[in-house]
Amino acid sequence: MGPTRVVDILRDQPVGRPVTISGWLRTRRDSGGLSFLEVNDGSCLASLQVIADTTLANYDGEIRKLATGAALRIQGQLVASPASGQAVEVQASAITVLGPADPATYPLQKKRHSFEFLRSITHLRSRTNALGAVARVRSALSFAVHRFFHEQGFLQVHTPVITTSDCEGAGEMFTVTALEPAALQGPDPFGADFFGRRAGLTVSGQLQAEIFALSHGRVYTFGPTFRAENSNTSRHLAEFWMVEPEMAFCDLAGDMQVAEGFIRFLVETALEECSEDLELFDRFVSKGLIDRLVQVRDRPFVRLTYTEAVAELERSGRDFAFPVRWGLDLQAEHERFLAEEAARA
Amino acid sequence: MGPTRVVDILRDQPVGRPVTISGWLRTRRDSGGLSFLEVNDGSCLASLQVIADTTLANYDGEIRKLATGAALRIQGQLVASPASGQAVEVQASAITVLGPADPATYPLQKKRHSFEFLRSITHLRSRTNALGAVARVRSALSFAVHRFFHEQGFLQVHTPVITTSDCEGAGEMFTVTALEPAALQGPDPFGADFFGRRAGLTVSGQLQAEIFALSHGRVYTFGPTFRAENSNTSRHLAEFWMVEPEMAFCDLAGDMQVAEGFIRFLVETALEECSEDLELFDRFVSKGLIDRLVQVRDRPFVRLTYTEAVAELERSGRDFAFPVRWGLDLQAEHERFLAEEAARA
Repeated sequence: MGPTRVVDILRDQPVGRPVTISGWLRTRRDSGGLSFLEVNDGSCLASLQVIADTTLANYDGEIRKLATGAALRIQGQLVASPASGQAVEVQASAITVLGPADPATYPLQKKRHSFEFLRSITHLRSRTNALGAVARVRSALSFAVHRFFHEQGFLQVHTPVITTSDCEGAGEMFTVTALEPAALQGPDPFGADFFGRRAGLTVSGQLQAEIFALSHGRVYTFGPTFRAENSNTSRHLAEFWMVEPEMAFCDLAGDMQVAEGFIRFLVETALEECSEDLELFDRFVSKGLIDRLVQVRDRPFVRLTYTEAVAELERSGRDFAFPVRWGLDLQAEHERFLAEEAARA
Repeated sequence: MGPTRVVDILRDQPVGRPVTISGWLRTRRDSGGLSFLEVNDGSCLASLQVIADTTLANYDGEIRKLATGAALRIQGQLVASPASGQAVEVQASAITVLGPADPATYPLQKKRHSFEFLRSITHLRSRTNALGAVARVRSALSFAVHRFFHEQGFLQVHTPVITTSDCEGAGEMFTVTALEPAALQGPDPFGADFFGRRAGLTVSGQLQAEIFALSHGRVYTFGPTFRAENSNTSRHLAEFWMVEPEMAFCDLAGDMQVAEGFIRFLVETALEECSEDLELFDRFVSKGLIDRLVQVRDRPFVRLTYTEAVAELERSGRDFAFPVRWGLDLQAEHERFLAEEAARA
């Protein structure tokens, strides 16, 4: 059913067999009566090279005019590629132009675009290498979250997004209403509203997950949560997906064991299933990323008590902005020192 | 780490081996110096029988006073059960009462409770057979959704819940605001709001999923969606989780193939992994449920064109509330006749 995915072709490399692929043109290069088309279908970072020649009926009329972004269906045969940098390519027997792209108006071209520019074309940016890779990694990790908990005997519970509980005051809530602003008046503005009282968007599924932990033992939630704080830090967005496990009959050691196993499993999955995408990030977005991930996967996690942590911080001789003394809360700068410097030493 | 789950014990039945389980007491029965405790941990519908006797230090002081709902940790040995209806039971060597339950105030007892009554104790109702089973089936099917699409090469995309798009007018939207009602005034009530304009809860992730289908080929969303219509039908709730696949380079036949495979896979998963829970529903909630599911799993899906459907409806001689004529839309009653009667004939 449907076209073969490029990721499957590159993995299996069925040379000599007919293939049909569909995707979007990344580049076209003409040379000696041939056109070399780089076609990407989003199934992986790599594109597949397609060779078109003058035996194609629409070669002069369409193929030689193709520009970046065109949607194509290609039938042909997979052959060993004489060019370096790729093992196989497609010798096209028919190319159908499903949708052309006008280079005068299509905003993506063969060059690096800034993330700021890509923000202005959200409908197209997932066709770029970097944001296409983000989508693949996010999907692989999302599935890995479910796999990990499923294999460990956790039940997924879907906790409500609209709620009247602020969950121990985890953050500022958005209000949800079915009324027009003009109707939200008087001493009881939400009295005539959908739920008959003020309701908002959840800041956490924790309370509902705890209920299910007390009937099913081990449960987790994985859904969107919300904060109405206008924060522009790396801490959280107004809307983000959060994983929350809850376990009955568990102690702190068991909790740490699950948490460590979870992190390791996600990192391992990313390294195994998304290596091509991670290499892109390592090269262009965050140098050393893969080394850091390998360390997380392979090195034992340090576990230390609060008392040991305070002693470690005091021993460091560092000049922290917040004071360090047994009895005081640890601040982000303290946790960062412990995780990024002390534990690695 | 932690207790062994009852579902694993009943599957593996490691007779003669020491086991530790934790769960909630369903019933206690005393007979001839022994107490028979039915302990359920939510990992499956079945409870595990635990035998307590006077050799336990806390037998007279605690065990003989235990009531439904108590949280227990039991250490003991798994032995073959002489009683009918169960293959194994636990001979307890130690029972720790983690939390007692007072029969005078604990609302669940060994009898059938109405769903209406259970609505009034949402914090406890997942401990009942029926709603505990719902939680297990829902979790199994949720994971099956991800497995199906993952195996078929679909990427999961997380589409925004807060949006300014009403997605082709799929339904009435809830409004989301970070302002107090008194601030939502004047000619531009949402001008000073979090997003600087009116925003609401998504009615569908379709538009965003289409964007990713046009860069990655096959994608799906699985997240909460919302309708602000005060509808008390079986059509939809104010908040519900929806699965939306989007495929580029696909036609109607390919679409039907995926849809049919998807339904079959979910039904098959439920029948295989949740048979005990489905038997409960079949007996007490929806007679004939398992037969209906087996038919969906095993029988070919009928495919017919609009023209064939209209002809079938006209041939039926039925007296429908809405007229049937080529060119008119099919109504719910027509679809129901085709699916529930014509296709089964």
